[in-house]
Amino acid sequence: MKLLSFRYGGEQLFGPKVKKEEAVWDVIAIREELGGESGFPDHLIDGVAGGMEFVEQIRKLVSRAESSGRSEEFKRSFDEIEWLAPIPRTPKNVICIGKNYADHAAEMGAERPPEKLVVFTKAPTAIAADESELPVHADLTESYDYEGELAVIIGKGGRNINKALAFDHIFGYSIANDLTARDVQAAHVQYFLGKSLDQSCPMGPYIVTKDEIPDPQNLSLVTKVNDEVRQNGHTRDMIFPIDELIAQVSTYVTLEPGDVILTGTPAGVGKGMNPPKFLKAGDTVKVSVEGIGTLSNTFA
Amino acid sequence: MKLLSFRYGGEQLFGPKVKKEEAVWDVIAIREELGGESGFPDHLIDGVAGGMEFVEQIRKLVSRAESSGRSEEFKRSFDEIEWLAPIPRTPKNVICIGKNYADHAAEMGAERPPEKLVVFTKAPTAIAADESELPVHADLTESYDYEGELAVIIGKGGRNINKALAFDHIFGYSIANDLTARDVQAAHVQYFLGKSLDQSCPMGPYIVTKDEIPDPQNLSLVTKVNDEVRQNGHTRDMIFPIDELIAQVSTYVTLEPGDVILTGTPAGVGKGMNPPKFLKAGDTVKVSVEGIGTLSNTFA
Repeated sequence: MKLLSFRYGGEQLFGPKVKKEEAVWDVIAIREELGGESGFPDHLIDGVAGGMEFVEQIRKLVSRAESSGRSEEFKRSFDEIEWLAPIPRTPKNVICIGKNYADHAAEMGAERPPEKLVVFTKAPTAIAADESELPVHADLTESYDYEGELAVIIGKGGRNINKALAFDHIFGYSIANDLTARDVQAAHVQYFLGKSLDQSCPMGPYIVTKDEIPDPQNLSLVTKVNDEVRQNGHTRDMIFPIDELIAQVSTYVTLEPGDVILTGTPAGVGKGMNPPKFLKAGDTVKVSVEGIGTLSNTFA
Repeated sequence: MKLLSFRYGGEQLFGPKVKKEEAVWDVIAIREELGGESGFPDHLIDGVAGGMEFVEQIRKLVSRAESSGRSEEFKRSFDEIEWLAPIPRTPKNVICIGKNYADHAAEMGAERPPEKLVVFTKAPTAIAADESELPVHADLTESYDYEGELAVIIGKGGRNINKALAFDHIFGYSIANDLTARDVQAAHVQYFLGKSLDQSCPMGPYIVTKDEIPDPQNLSLVTKVNDEVRQNGHTRDMIFPIDELIAQVSTYVTLEPGDVILTGTPAGVGKGMNPPKFLKAGDTVKVSVEGIGTLSNTFA
């Protein structure tokens, strides 16, 4: 199931993409009009802790709409909604893994890949939607750079999560662009400031629920700038795979439903080019992850 | 005004300390019983954006109680409440300034004080209350260390805040202990993991509103471990003073009401001693900041 959050009629809503149509099921409207699924949440983030049971609830609401003879009433065309990031506001800062692909660590000047996880955060005020126009922050940075990444959406929270049970805690997957002011990142040593500019964390378009991604370590990841391929990576090349990330991060930090972990970026960022090529107004960046979709943003 | 958050009768409440009594005014109960102050928030964090107008609303509720002839009904003795951190959950991770006192930078091995702000974060799941018993996390770290700090509570949010107007954005001040797993901090290079253990951010007991702190750069700061003075610092020695911190952080990151900035710790942490002395079960750490009070926690 492909789930999206959106704004329609002034309200923040969510629902699954309608199969083979450019539209979304307004499951909140279905619940209100046709009833059923008591305790069904108003926002996507409030459902993810339920995992596949929550997905099942959504399925039941959709089939109730389909068998009602009124299904068109509950579809919202992509033309008439405002897209939001699937989790427009994470409960804590977005958790990000640095240098998790050896080729990227090398292009950033690291002598060897990290032996321990590098974990930093992006402020939740940085989250932005697919297709939104983003600032290039020319007043703040001369080296604004893209990093295409697979995003893991935590469903059930926890601490000290056993690596063998890590996938029980995943709700699904999305795509993020971990936009980075390289000069700010370098000057301030700790990454938080250079990683937390407004709208520097576009995410989406969907959360694809985990039942549709049998092996998240077997996905190609391609980032294009203005249709030029810059990153052509593969999630099999993560140094610390997803189950290890969840186990290690949760050794120290309590994970909560709706927390997002960005799993790192492969080689091909602008800073790694010779000469470096940073983002400028007018650029379009598209991050595609196999089986999930394409996150696309233009810079103003 | 000294404001605290607390739990009483199963509810999360807040109010000002009753002058010269070991008790708090339950302003929510006053509002419900005696009326007035429409739009008055249920939680402290939802009021801080109002700044001194919010403080004035609280004052009016208290004087309404005092003149009602029923004032004892609205006081909750400190014996009967559960203390919470004044902001039990910050909207984003707690924003922390590293190496903001030259003597502390030196004891941590830095050749010179930082020329640029060092900014990292602590997960909001780390926030704990004054007087709460804290874990020493012996399974995760062999070098758990204290850092007594002045905490700045943001009232009005904003980005690109002018240094000259920075104090307009402060609601008040509190005290925090930025507990740190030194071995985890060092091994993972970026500080987030080693700074985000559960209950590693005790804060409190109060927020003292800014009208009572005419000069926050003129406060002594003393940390004691088991009554031995370890840190004997002064906020005048911050490398980047508070107005500069707010201006610089907000250059990059949008600040929101209830955000907390920890302003850095002076010399005297356990790691800086020869030999280092880290926290162990049974220790009590007290952080006192002039005009604000004392934050006290025992380790189990």
